[in-house]
Amino acid sequence: MQKVQLGKCCQLFELRRVAICYYSTSKFRKRSNSSLFELACEACVDILAKSQISQTEIDAVLVSSSTQEPYTSSIVSEMLGIRPSISQRIESLCNSGTNAIISAYSHIISGLCDSALVVGVEKSESPGNVLTWDITRGSFAFPIHWASMFAKAHMRKFGTTEEQMAMVSVKNHRNAVNNPAALFRKAVTLEGVMESKKIVPPIKVLDCSAICEGASAVLIMSEDKVKSFGIEDPVWITGVGMETRSASFAAVAADLSASESVRNAAKKAFRMSGKKPRDIDVAEVHDAFTILEIMAYEDLGFVEKGKGGRFVDNCEIAFNPRGGILGSGHPVGATGIAQVAEVAAQIQGKACKRQVKDCENGLVQNLAAAGTSATVMIMNK
Amino acid sequence: MQKVQLGKCCQLFELRRVAICYYSTSKFRKRSNSSLFELACEACVDILAKSQISQTEIDAVLVSSSTQEPYTSSIVSEMLGIRPSISQRIESLCNSGTNAIISAYSHIISGLCDSALVVGVEKSESPGNVLTWDITRGSFAFPIHWASMFAKAHMRKFGTTEEQMAMVSVKNHRNAVNNPAALFRKAVTLEGVMESKKIVPPIKVLDCSAICEGASAVLIMSEDKVKSFGIEDPVWITGVGMETRSASFAAVAADLSASESVRNAAKKAFRMSGKKPRDIDVAEVHDAFTILEIMAYEDLGFVEKGKGGRFVDNCEIAFNPRGGILGSGHPVGATGIAQVAEVAAQIQGKACKRQVKDCENGLVQNLAAAGTSATVMIMNK
Repeated sequence: MQKVQLGKCCQLFELRRVAICYYSTSKFRKRSNSSLFELACEACVDILAKSQISQTEIDAVLVSSSTQEPYTSSIVSEMLGIRPSISQRIESLCNSGTNAIISAYSHIISGLCDSALVVGVEKSESPGNVLTWDITRGSFAFPIHWASMFAKAHMRKFGTTEEQMAMVSVKNHRNAVNNPAALFRKAVTLEGVMESKKIVPPIKVLDCSAICEGASAVLIMSEDKVKSFGIEDPVWITGVGMETRSASFAAVAADLSASESVRNAAKKAFRMSGKKPRDIDVAEVHDAFTILEIMAYEDLGFVEKGKGGRFVDNCEIAFNPRGGILGSGHPVGATGIAQVAEVAAQIQGKACKRQVKDCENGLVQNLAAAGTSATVMIMNK
Repeated sequence: MQKVQLGKCCQLFELRRVAICYYSTSKFRKRSNSSLFELACEACVDILAKSQISQTEIDAVLVSSSTQEPYTSSIVSEMLGIRPSISQRIESLCNSGTNAIISAYSHIISGLCDSALVVGVEKSESPGNVLTWDITRGSFAFPIHWASMFAKAHMRKFGTTEEQMAMVSVKNHRNAVNNPAALFRKAVTLEGVMESKKIVPPIKVLDCSAICEGASAVLIMSEDKVKSFGIEDPVWITGVGMETRSASFAAVAADLSASESVRNAAKKAFRMSGKKPRDIDVAEVHDAFTILEIMAYEDLGFVEKGKGGRFVDNCEIAFNPRGGILGSGHPVGATGIAQVAEVAAQIQGKACKRQVKDCENGLVQNLAAAGTSATVMIMNK
């Protein structure tokens, strides 16, 4: 049980606890001949095989994707032989995966289901990759344009350097070498990043993540199910925070050196879990561009605002041990799920060569479209 | 508080109660020059104006739609001046609207939000209108093909007549005359339906609903919010049942005279609410084709299997007082929301010329793609 104060009333409610029990991330690829559904099923079938849990025990199937296909959650359910109570697709661009996991969390607490299979999946031609609807960007239609503005603001205001940003890329590519699911499994050097092609100054090609395709799935359960299946190493979701500021870049551009949505989502998640940034051992943060990881250190409260650049190689918390988005690739709907899967694996001590020592508390931070929306989740042993 | 037994454990949990507080359905039209977002905002702005509730008090925005636009919930939020915690689009074809309301229900019970604006919206060119992915249909690609098979099976097995089906159309078109939001506001006669063009025998054009565009929104709140705003006539959601059998028609075609998903969803919803079919005063059921309403009477437990045809003009429950889908039109993502809005209006006694006397308990039944998935909700004073 978790005692939680709900709403503005003073009453403490006893809520069921919810845990990540199994997870699987398929190999992220630039392109493949597999359909969206085949990709989704690959990760789900792996979970069914590992867990030995029968399809009849799964009563929700949630799909996270920016696909244009309708009825995807029912199609995936049928392909897997599952007849769920709840079946839905959740879309919120890059923030879809964490959003879907949090939906499963809510459905379990509400008692409408006891176990939920949540799968994030994207094909490389996903419509989620370009933000044509945001006319406030003018001719700056691609995400790299706002990343460049974020980076310039941070450099101007806090003296952050291009080398510090490059170090994020070096660290995350180094971590990805040990991640069999990562798109890029080759280390890069500081010189390599600095000398890589400048796309929109100061952003170089190795400061950027790459669009790709792949799937990641997690099986989430109520406390009762965890007990009845005798699962020994559940990873409890104890903190959840979300915030949407806007959809358009213009609405969040007043301060380019911080992300309000991340700050507020973090405050909510830490308050709910009762943890502090210093309690966190491992974190997956949204590093679609190197500057975003530096801003995440600050906006999540791990280091003072402005000091993120110097924090990269100088902190005790393991950030992005799977290689983050820079190393793993960015199949939009799958990213949030793959982040949660990695933190769960780290807390269970099952992250193989990537294993960080003594992980008890983990954090996931995800965002969409220049931080117009963000999610923070805290997970514990 | 509602005491609910969750999962297979014996413990009774006290859950927060969740209520429909405000609703608005825009005029359904064949086609318009309004964008998807303008349509969505029309219904939401009407709720904000009616309720006098500030945007800062709304902490979730859920969009139900089959649109191909990404990030719709954040775009709608920004257009409305709302900065929600939770922002997501839910897709599950015709079943999207009820699915989204149930997501809001879960998010409120879990304590992640206290109030949720749920808006269903569709443009007439929505990709949700044709089911190209279901190869089990062979050359029978359109919904009317399975409707014809359902109708023939019911006629063959139970002696249901074309006139009985036509009576559903007569009743629902008659009701739609009093619904300002309905697409069709013209009564039709039994002869008119019987003589209307046969499309796929025995289905005639007036046995079918029409694709159209429009939006419907509801504002849902926790019990605390209901109290703090002094809302006098909340409509509580007390029963929820959902089931997905498959995505493909072939998988549900073994028995063409009943819908297992509707039967199972109804069982769950009635059990949860503690109500019986005889307690229900008003119901919105999914009548995309006339035969579906007859099957709904039976599968929801209002009348014995096989006797639905004779039940049409011979029951005390008000079915589809807004004109159902036959009279109101079928903007896929908006339908489930408009159904819930109508039942809430009836229970509040605010349904104007359509008002059914003494409504205390209402039911909504919605389904997608030949009943491969279904939702049943029960709502009370």
